[in-house]
Parts: sequence; C-alpha cells; structure tokens
Amino acid sequence: MKLHQVADRLHCRLEGDGDIEIARVAGIEQAQPGDLTFIAHEKYVAKLAATRASAVIVSDAIQGAPGGPALLRAASPYVAFAQAVGLLTAAPPAPRGVDAASAIASDVGLGPDVSIGAFVTIGAGATIGARTIVYPNVTIGPGVRIGADCIVRSQVSIRDGVVIGNRVILQDGAVLGSEGFGFARQPDGTHLKIPQRAAVIIEDDVEIGANTTIDRPAVGETRIGAGTKIDNLVQIAHGVRVGRRVLLAAQVGVAGSCVIEDDVILAGQVGVANHVHLGQGTIATAQTGIPNSVDAGSYVSGYPAIPHRDWLKSSAIFRALPALRKRMTELEQHIAELEEKLHACQTASEK
Amino acid sequence: MKLHQVADRLHCRLEGDGDIEIARVAGIEQAQPGDLTFIAHEKYVAKLAATRASAVIVSDAIQGAPGGPALLRAASPYVAFAQAVGLLTAAPPAPRGVDAASAIASDVGLGPDVSIGAFVTIGAGATIGARTIVYPNVTIGPGVRIGADCIVRSQVSIRDGVVIGNRVILQDGAVLGSEGFGFARQPDGTHLKIPQRAAVIIEDDVEIGANTTIDRPAVGETRIGAGTKIDNLVQIAHGVRVGRRVLLAAQVGVAGSCVIEDDVILAGQVGVANHVHLGQGTIATAQTGIPNSVDAGSYVSGYPAIPHRDWLKSSAIFRALPALRKRMTELEQHIAELEEKLHACQTASEK
Amino acid sequence: MKLHQVADRLHCRLEGDGDIEIARVAGIEQAQPGDLTFIAHEKYVAKLAATRASAVIVSDAIQGAPGGPALLRAASPYVAFAQAVGLLTAAPPAPRGVDAASAIASDVGLGPDVSIGAFVTIGAGATIGARTIVYPNVTIGPGVRIGADCIVRSQVSIRDGVVIGNRVILQDGAVLGSEGFGFARQPDGTHLKIPQRAAVIIEDDVEIGANTTIDRPAVGETRIGAGTKIDNLVQIAHGVRVGRRVLLAAQVGVAGSCVIEDDVILAGQVGVANHVHLGQGTIATAQTGIPNSVDAGSYVSGYPAIPHRDWLKSSAIFRALPALRKRMTELEQHIAELEEKLHACQTASEK
Repeated sequence: MKLHQVADRLHCRLEGDGDIEIARVAGIEQAQPGDLTFIAHEKYVAKLAATRASAVIVSDAIQGAPGGPALLRAASPYVAFAQAVGLLTAAPPAPRGVDAASAIASDVGLGPDVSIGAFVTIGAGATIGARTIVYPNVTIGPGVRIGADCIVRSQVSIRDGVVIGNRVILQDGAVLGSEGFGFARQPDGTHLKIPQRAAVIIEDDVEIGANTTIDRPAVGETRIGAGTKIDNLVQIAHGVRVGRRVLLAAQVGVAGSCVIEDDVILAGQVGVANHVHLGQGTIATAQTGIPNSVDAGSYVSGYPAIPHRDWLKSSAIFRALPALRKRMTELEQHIAELEEKLHACQTASEK
Repeated sequence: MKLHQVADRLHCRLEGDGDIEIARVAGIEQAQPGDLTFIAHEKYVAKLAATRASAVIVSDAIQGAPGGPALLRAASPYVAFAQAVGLLTAAPPAPRGVDAASAIASDVGLGPDVSIGAFVTIGAGATIGARTIVYPNVTIGPGVRIGADCIVRSQVSIRDGVVIGNRVILQDGAVLGSEGFGFARQPDGTHLKIPQRAAVIIEDDVEIGANTTIDRPAVGETRIGAGTKIDNLVQIAHGVRVGRRVLLAAQVGVAGSCVIEDDVILAGQVGVANHVHLGQGTIATAQTGIPNSVDAGSYVSGYPAIPHRDWLKSSAIFRALPALRKRMTELEQHIAELEEKLHACQTASEK
Repeated sequence: MKLHQVADRLHCRLEGDGDIEIARVAGIEQAQPGDLTFIAHEKYVAKLAATRASAVIVSDAIQGAPGGPALLRAASPYVAFAQAVGLLTAAPPAPRGVDAASAIASDVGLGPDVSIGAFVTIGAGATIGARTIVYPNVTIGPGVRIGADCIVRSQVSIRDGVVIGNRVILQDGAVLGSEGFGFARQPDGTHLKIPQRAAVIIEDDVEIGANTTIDRPAVGETRIGAGTKIDNLVQIAHGVRVGRRVLLAAQVGVAGSCVIEDDVILAGQVGVANHVHLGQGTIATAQTGIPNSVDAGSYVSGYPAIPHRDWLKSSAIFRALPALRKRMTELEQHIAELEEKLHACQTASEK
C-alpha cells in the first residue's frame, strides 16, 4: 500500500514522499525499510533519527529531520498506530459456518452468519448473535445469551445462563460463570457449600483474557461493565461489580462483592480484598494489595496500599533501614557521652 | 414457598407472619419484597431496619423491630442461609446419560446413573462412580478413579492414574495430575527433566476451583485432604500434602513438598515456599509470603510472614518512615546544639 | 531390576550388594526396602543412617555407614536420580495413531508416527513433526508449526501461526498465541484494540506449565529460548523475549516487551514490569516485584526489588520497627531531660 493511501485511511497529514510502498508495521527499533512505525511520546524523539523505518506516525509536537523518514501527523499517534496495525496485517483465519462435528441443542438460536468450530457444545435454550465466531472446543452452557459480533476462542467455558453483550472477545481458556468460593462453616468445622447459581453479565465491548476466571454469586450478580478490558489469569470473584472502561492487568485478583468504579486501572498482580470499593479512576501499581476502600482518583501502591508518593518515599527509606538504625545507635552513644560530660560539668560547678 | 415452610425446612424458629410467600434469596441491601435474606453478625443489625426483604435469618442475639421483616431464628444464620439458597434456587441443568459424541475406552467402568457430556474423553481402565456428572469437553486419562456423586465441569483435564473420592467438585478448566516442575541442573547448564509420574489423590468432599492446577510428583504423592476447598487459579506443586477442611483462596501458590495441616486458611495470592510446614489452623492474610514453617494456630501476614499483630504495627510505621527519619535528623541537630551549649557551660565553669 | 544393572545404566560406581532387587524410587524419608533414593547435599547426610531404602545415590563427599544401605556414587546425585526415576517408573500411556474423532484440515502435514487424540482440532496448513503426541481435546490453529518429539497435553490451545521447536512439552490447558493486552486510549476514554497478530516462537526443549499463557504481540515477536522451563499459571505478555535455560516458577508474571536473558531464575509469584531487561543469570526470590532493569548476575528480593542481602537486613528491621520507634521516643525524652539539666547547670554556673 502506498504511504499516501495509508495516510488517507488513518486520517493523518503526510509529510514526505507519499509514493513509498508500506508493507508492514514494526516497533521503531526493529523497523526496516518498507515499515511504518510510531512515536507515542516526545521523550522518544531521539529514536526518530536512528530508525530505519520508511515512515513514522508522530504528533504535531515532534519535529521531522531532513533526510529522515516520512512523517504521518496524527492527533493521537498511538491510536493511529492501532489502526495501522489493523490495516497492514491480515486478520487470522476463522471458522466459517457451523461445523458438523459440534453438539448444538436443537432449540439453540443462531443469528445470521454465526460460525461454530468443531467440538463446540451449546446447551439448550442458548442464543448466539449475528456474526459471532465460536472457535473449536468451546463449551457454552444451557440458556447462555451471547450478542452479535463476539469472538469466543478455543477452550473457553461459559456456564449456564451467563449473559454476554455485543462485540465481546473471550480469549482462550477463559471461564465465565464458575461457582464462587462461598462456604458456611458448620459447628463441626466442615464447610457447607452455599450454592452459587446467580447471574454473570458481561456488557458490550468487553475483552477477557486467556485462562481468566469470572465467578457467579449465590445472590445478586457479577457484572463486567461496557468497554472494560481484562488481561490473562485474572480472578473476578462472586458478586464483583466492575464498571466501564476499567483495565485489569494480568494476574489481578478481585475478591468477593467488590465494587470497581469506571476507569479504574489495576496493574499486574494487584489484589483487592472483599467488599472493597474502588472509586472512579483509581490507579494501583503492580502487586499492590488493597485491603480497604479507596476514594475516586486515588493513585496507590504497596501492601497494604498507601498513596503512591508516600510509598515511594517509605520504600526508599526501607532500603536504608540498616543505615537509619546505625544512626540511632550512634545517637544513643552520643547522648550517653553528653550525659557523662554534663555530670562532670555539674560536679565541677557544684564545687 | 410459604415462609413457615421455609422455616420448617431450615429448622429455624419463626417470628412473624408465616404465610408470606418467599420467592427468592438476596443480599440484605438488594432484597425486595418476597425475598429472604440474612444477618451473619450483630454488627450489621442496623441493616435490619432498612431492608425491604420480607424475611431475615438472624441469630438469637439480634432483636427484631416492630413493623420490621419477619425473622427466622437460627443457631448459625450463615449456615441456614446456605441451605435457603439451595432451597429457593433451581439447580442448573446437567447432562443426562452418556452422550454418543464422547470417546470412552471400552473397559471404562461407569457406575449407575453416570452422566457424560459431549466430546468427553475417558482413557482405558478408568472408573467413574455412581451419579457422577461429567460435563462436555472434559479429558479423563487412563486409569483415573473417580468416586460417586462427583461433578466434573467442562474443560477439566484429569491426568492418568489420578484418584478422586466421593462428592468432589471440579470447576471448569482445573488440571489434576500435570507434571511437577522438577529438573536437575546438568554440568552444561541445561535442565534435565525428572519424570513426574507419581500419584495425585483427592479425598472426599473436596472442591477445586476454575483453572486451578495440581501437579503430580516424581515420587510419593500429592494429596488434598477431605473437605478441603480450593478457589480459582491456585497452584499446588508436586508432593504437597494438604490436610482436611483447609481453605485456599484464589491465586494462592504452594510450592513443592509443603505440608499444610488441617483447618489452615490462606487468603488470596498467598505464597508458600517449598518444604514449608504450616501447623494446624494457621491463618495467613492476603498476599502473605511464607518462607519458613509456621506453628499451629499462627496468624501471619507480610512478606516475609510475621505475626499479624506485629505486621500491622510495622506497616503503620512503614507508612510513617519519612516522619521517623525527620525526627532522627532533628534529634541529631538538637544533640549538636546541646553539645555546643554544654561546651560553653564547661568553659564558663572552668573560668 | 538388580542394583548393579541400575548402577550400569546410571553410570554410577556401586558400593554394596549389587544383587539387591530395586523396584521403586522414593524420597529418603518415605523409602522402604526395595527402594532407591538419593542425597543431593552433604547437609542431609544424617538421613543416610535413618533411611530404610535399599540403596542411595550419593556424591563422593558422603561417607557410607557400615550396615547401611548400598551406595551408588555419582558426580551429580540429583541428575542420576532424575535418570533413575525414568528408569524405574513406567511412562504413562499415550494415544497411538490418529483418532478418527479428530478434526484435521485436509492439508495438515503429519510427520511419521504422530499420535493425535480424540476431539483434537488442527487448522489448515499446520504441520506436526515426527513422533509428536497430541492428547485429546487440544486445539491447534491454522498455520501452526510443531517440531518432532513434542508432547501436547489436553485442553491446550495453540493459536494460528505459532511456531514450536522439537522436544517441546506443553502441559494441560496452556495457551500459546493469545492476543496481548494492547489498547490505545481514545479521546472519549474508551480503549481501541491494537490488533495482536504477530509471532510466537517456542524454541527446542522448552517446557510450558499447565494453564500458563503466552501472548502474541502487535509487531515483532514473543520468543521463548531453547531449554527454558516455565511452570504453571505463568503469564508471558506480548513481545517478551525469554532467553535460554531460564526457569520461571509458578504464577510468575512478565509484562510486555521485557527481555529476560539466559539462565535467569524467577521464583514463584515474581512480577516483572514492562520493558524491563533482566541480565544473564539474574535470580529473584519468591514474590519479588521488579520495576526496573537488573544487571547480569544480580540476586534480588522485595517490592520494589533490591539486592537480596539488603532486603534480608531491611526486612529484619521492618519487623523491629515498633522497637526502633520506641527507642526514638525514649531518646527524645532523654534529650529533653538533658536539656533541662544543662539549663540548670548553666544557671548554677552563672550565679
């Protein structure tokens, strides 16, 4: 594709030779002639001089270099790059039609142009919306409702009655609607299972990562809000309510009955204790442990979580604790000496 | 169902109108007329006045309010609530009989009323006990022995020779009997695999969460004791011995050859180093890292784990470390001033 | 098998009765007559006197006891033990041939003696090397290339175009080639998916644990180097490059675009932030959080990661922080007293 065609498609302003042939997208350090790349932030501007890419997507804040690569000016270079990847890479092949080697209950409702791979099981009363693609070896339970234009990857299990919106993507091995971890301790010390049969609802435009698990509760519902993106190996416990446009990175764990408001971002391996409420836009850095509710707009770190700036300071001192203790010991010695001197002084003055 | 019928079935003492129709169970804040809910602890008594529920399960310690909801008195309200959920919600549909689209070796022993879903594979010599339900897309290896009244959810893999007791529940995607992470470092730096072919034994009444993994060892056995409940995405390494009635929350990791005694509780994301012994009734709070063995009855937190009360105190001071360091610096300045004054005093007294 | 035969096969020097019949391998504490066990380190020599094993693999540094078990002398007892396990335990049964209940695209290339289990799906254009075994209920996408002598366990999903070398072992439920967690934030706060369609390459002799996930990137590649071993429930994000002979224990998470050099060892639940570079031979203890790049040969702990020895010292003081603060308060009181005394002394000397 000619660069000027790419510029048109990405709604970018072109600076340089529009007749260059663009074959691929690449990272700025790996890029070769024929590649399109991008600079997301001004601080990486030095890479512009060194790249071998034929063209680079940049913001208006970045100045081109004479003899450097052609530029595509974009209001948001990262968004334009995302579009460029879609434009210049081929979509992977998908199953077409309904595979004969699938087990679909007779009353399942399949929308137009639905694709179902081999060895997929779909239980009684389920419905699958238009153009949704179900890859091989997926299990969809009775009564499940899946919207239009969804993608369900292999080895996924969707339990009975789970409700899924439109344009939802489920990566391989994800489990939706498994039974929450709810037991009542009995007088003899054994644990009585509290049946977990209530709802799981996944709203539109959600993506759920590989081998992530989302439990159903005993009462009420577990809900993932529209536009939320969840990475791999994440645990969402029973009764959790996740808002819209939330980002949960890999291996995050959210315990039962939490409320996570819109636009929250939890980095990798963060843990949230049960019944915690995270206010809108809360950000937690990797491995943070959050035992208590957090106000909207908070930026927290550590275990237990404290404001990020405090944590940075305390962590720096943590590393220097041996030095701090040494200062303490020296101070104690110093004071003992002072006391002796003072005593001598007192004795002298009493004479 | 009439409330007096519910009371009978739950063995609760009824206070109020037994002719109320109860349709659902619900959390106390979400409950609507027609709902039954519960109060597990006296500290939530204030919610009793505000709930719209028609009836509430409470202990004898909680006083009813005139005009408030009907009460069901129970010795353990949480246990009664667990029973109420079972009573008032419908069990999800399950496969019936043996699906023709399954691959069951000719010598597999199936007990009476076993159900096997589509695309289930069962290897040679395996046995499945009475009334056990195997959902679609499960793999059961050769020689596996599964007891009676078990539930095996979709996408589970049970490797060859694993032994499972009665009334065991395996949530979707769980893996039992995968090979432990055992390698011997060779002189050239490469890692020689130690074959992991020994036993995995799951005793009666165990529940294992979605996408949890339980490894087999090279020698000896990995064992999960009766009545133990394991949440999602938990790692049980090779040769671990877990006792009875243990609770392991989501994303816990237990390294090789650990011994976890009866009634231990590990909260989410706890890690236990290899060869560690956790004494009976040990409790560890979320994200605790346990590098060394712990005596029975311990209550630990932190990384590395220390007694919970000590950890609370130290964590509070951690947050205040910048202030502590400031006090230290002020003290040092103060002492320097004192020393000067003392010197002046000495000089004066010597005159 | 006679002990002298075992000695021959393991290339060990025999001390004792070579005609003993050896039936099993076992841990030194569980071993019974007829068992072969081992001592990996001199510090465990005391166990030699107590074991009931018939024979023990030891290094030259360990002295035998009169009347004790027969000894097999090995340069590396642990390597010899690994070989003994392979020698004395039966390999588990594997599928033979290509199961009729599989869905294999017509143009798939199958090497000689490939085995494919029931309900396996293999997409168009894929190739499977000689003697590779694919267990039941596996999904292999279009264009996947798998080498010779590989083992692919049940419930694994290998996405389109993933390239796998020779002698690779994939434990149950592993996901290779799922889409990386890449989104560009748009002006309205929604997240635009950056298509993730680039390569995942698994080199020779890699082992990947149960339910582990390895993501593909938007551009470039995700690569796992030869001889690297990855445990269960590990997350490898998009664009990560893992070197050779690396060991990643269970529940480790490696964020996007990291470079992990050869011979790195990360213990359980370690997290590595994105774009971090871990130099050759880096070791991190369990639960370490690594936010910044680390030089070759480093040994780190803590969150954020610091040198292990520093972390041990600081952690010990962390536990003693209440005592440290008490000393601080006492010091402040002491100084106040001193100041008063000094004042009295000054007043006296001025008289």
